[in-house]
Amino acid sequence: MTAAHDAIEVIHTKRDGGELSDSQIDWVIRSYTDGVVAEEQMAALNMAILLRGMNRREIARWTAAMIASGSRMSFDSLSRPTADKHSTGGVGDKITLPLAPLVAACGVAVPQLSGRGLGHTGGTLDKLESIPGWQASLSNDAMMAQLESVGAVICAAGAGLAPADRKLYALRDVTGTVESIPLIASSIMSKKIAEGTGALVLDVKVGSGAFMKSLGDARELARTMVDLGTDAGVHTVALLTDMSTPLGRTAGNALEVVESVEVLAGGGPADVAELTVALAREMLLGAGVSDVDPAAVLASGRAMDTWRAMIAAQGGDPDAPLPVARETHVVAAPVSGVLTRLDALAVGLAAWRLGAGRERKEDPVQYGAGVVWHARPGDAVAAGEPLFTLHTDTPERFARALDALRGGYDIAPAGSTFEAPELILDRIS
Amino acid sequence: MTAAHDAIEVIHTKRDGGELSDSQIDWVIRSYTDGVVAEEQMAALNMAILLRGMNRREIARWTAAMIASGSRMSFDSLSRPTADKHSTGGVGDKITLPLAPLVAACGVAVPQLSGRGLGHTGGTLDKLESIPGWQASLSNDAMMAQLESVGAVICAAGAGLAPADRKLYALRDVTGTVESIPLIASSIMSKKIAEGTGALVLDVKVGSGAFMKSLGDARELARTMVDLGTDAGVHTVALLTDMSTPLGRTAGNALEVVESVEVLAGGGPADVAELTVALAREMLLGAGVSDVDPAAVLASGRAMDTWRAMIAAQGGDPDAPLPVARETHVVAAPVSGVLTRLDALAVGLAAWRLGAGRERKEDPVQYGAGVVWHARPGDAVAAGEPLFTLHTDTPERFARALDALRGGYDIAPAGSTFEAPELILDRIS
Repeated sequence: MTAAHDAIEVIHTKRDGGELSDSQIDWVIRSYTDGVVAEEQMAALNMAILLRGMNRREIARWTAAMIASGSRMSFDSLSRPTADKHSTGGVGDKITLPLAPLVAACGVAVPQLSGRGLGHTGGTLDKLESIPGWQASLSNDAMMAQLESVGAVICAAGAGLAPADRKLYALRDVTGTVESIPLIASSIMSKKIAEGTGALVLDVKVGSGAFMKSLGDARELARTMVDLGTDAGVHTVALLTDMSTPLGRTAGNALEVVESVEVLAGGGPADVAELTVALAREMLLGAGVSDVDPAAVLASGRAMDTWRAMIAAQGGDPDAPLPVARETHVVAAPVSGVLTRLDALAVGLAAWRLGAGRERKEDPVQYGAGVVWHARPGDAVAAGEPLFTLHTDTPERFARALDALRGGYDIAPAGSTFEAPELILDRIS
Repeated sequence: MTAAHDAIEVIHTKRDGGELSDSQIDWVIRSYTDGVVAEEQMAALNMAILLRGMNRREIARWTAAMIASGSRMSFDSLSRPTADKHSTGGVGDKITLPLAPLVAACGVAVPQLSGRGLGHTGGTLDKLESIPGWQASLSNDAMMAQLESVGAVICAAGAGLAPADRKLYALRDVTGTVESIPLIASSIMSKKIAEGTGALVLDVKVGSGAFMKSLGDARELARTMVDLGTDAGVHTVALLTDMSTPLGRTAGNALEVVESVEVLAGGGPADVAELTVALAREMLLGAGVSDVDPAAVLASGRAMDTWRAMIAAQGGDPDAPLPVARETHVVAAPVSGVLTRLDALAVGLAAWRLGAGRERKEDPVQYGAGVVWHARPGDAVAAGEPLFTLHTDTPERFARALDALRGGYDIAPAGSTFEAPELILDRIS
């Protein structure tokens, strides 16, 4: 039994700097989901929340109300503990692909509900859909069966989880109210808590290619989400990781699958392998498994076996050739020296403009499109040698991708000192 | 030629504390009027404006853009100068009724576009519609002809004036974004400037029965509106007047017409006559007429002649009996003494609940309903003698009206000192 409220009273409370009561929050989320509170009323309330903030109790209740708007999943019947990872999104961030099978190979089930990309950061489902035959949509029963047999599932979230969040996110997207830490945190955590995972590791990206540009904002977001998860009984930890430089050496859908398979095979870029192992260790700890070394499991090839089983279980052929873009364009290093900066946003925009991402939700993506960079900060480069290779099916896209890359890197004279930034900046638990 | 913008960019600018450019303002008002900017986007922008404010240039441009969304009237072809008055709304505020014919009788034409009431403050058109036969809607040609022949028109604003404001006001009403001085000032002034008056006098009410409860807020609103009018070439002055006590002795539609006719006949409550003459003097000065004394014209009976001609020109019979409520209820003074406080909000709510006002735009009003108070602050009252008479056609309304009046007045022991508040608190030009 909830008290009756009205939208203007709730809006006025927050507009005038007050705290929303539990009853106001429950009422407004339920009424918005049911269409009783209109889109324009929720838009005004969102802007008031963005500018006035919410305290820990309000954020927790807001999240709980969004969870209560839909169904909850449960993995209690599984024979293994569960752990999940969420990244706030970065350029070249293919970590979920090697991570899920690695953690499963270590004995913890990974029910990874993922999304598609919008804007300059890629989406995990888009990457996996570049594998011929692979299907993102699974029934709950199929998901549970795969978790029991293979141990890892990466699939699309069903429509039943936190429907209030789905509606609210679409509204925030068109009303300039995305950039609110309380609203971002509750949006992410309502889905993750409703999903029913036992442990959750958050990879909060910081830097030019990330949503959070400053360490302070990223820390506040991480702290808010860790509090929400903890209050809801989910073992939650956050790593703050650098996203001023893109991860690995590729950004694009099939290009990143190739790189992920290299990591599962024991190779691949050092930063991707390092972050994969660090996040795996946190997921295992969160699930109560402390006696397995994920680095050793990765080296053993068992994670690769799980990857192949996971892809095959969802209709994919792990041995099929991946899509390759019809056209490539090579950018040569203009001078010799040391690459001292490679800007994640510039690379992300270039990959997006080449067709790896979409502008509107309904747009298709080009599976072969993207950017390969042949040097990482700290590497020596030689004038005239390839620095980037751009891939696309539609060569008219090269010009705007090249615009994005212009000014996106620095080359210093050979012998210049270069200090690599830390990959893992902080840990919040 | 205006630059292209998008709604999110405009919202972000104001949300993040920036100034909106002229081009952004022109674009967003035009696009909202045309339906390109959605209601939820304008709601978010309104909330950002409410919390972040707008500077003088932004408010002026916002107002100009709302004017440009529709047509403008012009009175240049009239043989007389024009002056108009706008009140921000109070209880028992019937001043427009005697004021328009008085100013016309002094030689200045009064094109008074008015509205209907919503909430506890009455609407001028509702009051005049209690006169049998009187019509609020006039064509532009009929309005011009009446201004030339009679000199005064009180009528409904046509749909062509500032349509952006009409749409925006309806949105603000449901999204908790009414209480913003920049948005209130631009809403009022867009209509008044589009109307084409040469001089404008603003009656900004302050106190419990007014929208502005504090002198500081009222002064800021008045200053903002005077600046807007002045910048647009309209001779604009504001009086700040008390609305802690209701005006005159009546609140209700036909009841206020009766009181207005008493003032035109040289009698009526002293405060109504005082404010009518003070506002008339400002309107005449604004129109460049300084050699006519409105008090003398009122005493001469010429304003009454103009009133009768004005009512008759719009189909009304100035001699017809006015509607009278079917039921009355008398509230007696509980003790003897001196009335030291009569709360405008309490009286306004009581009149509204008796049927004098409407709850929703589409509701009818009861023309005979309302409240008569038999004493004003400073008057002696005797226990058992009538203090209020309540009027309604629907006696089930008495109980809630009596609730509203409870605690709405104070009676001090006989002989107590009482200092009457000033009626005119400030003048801003």
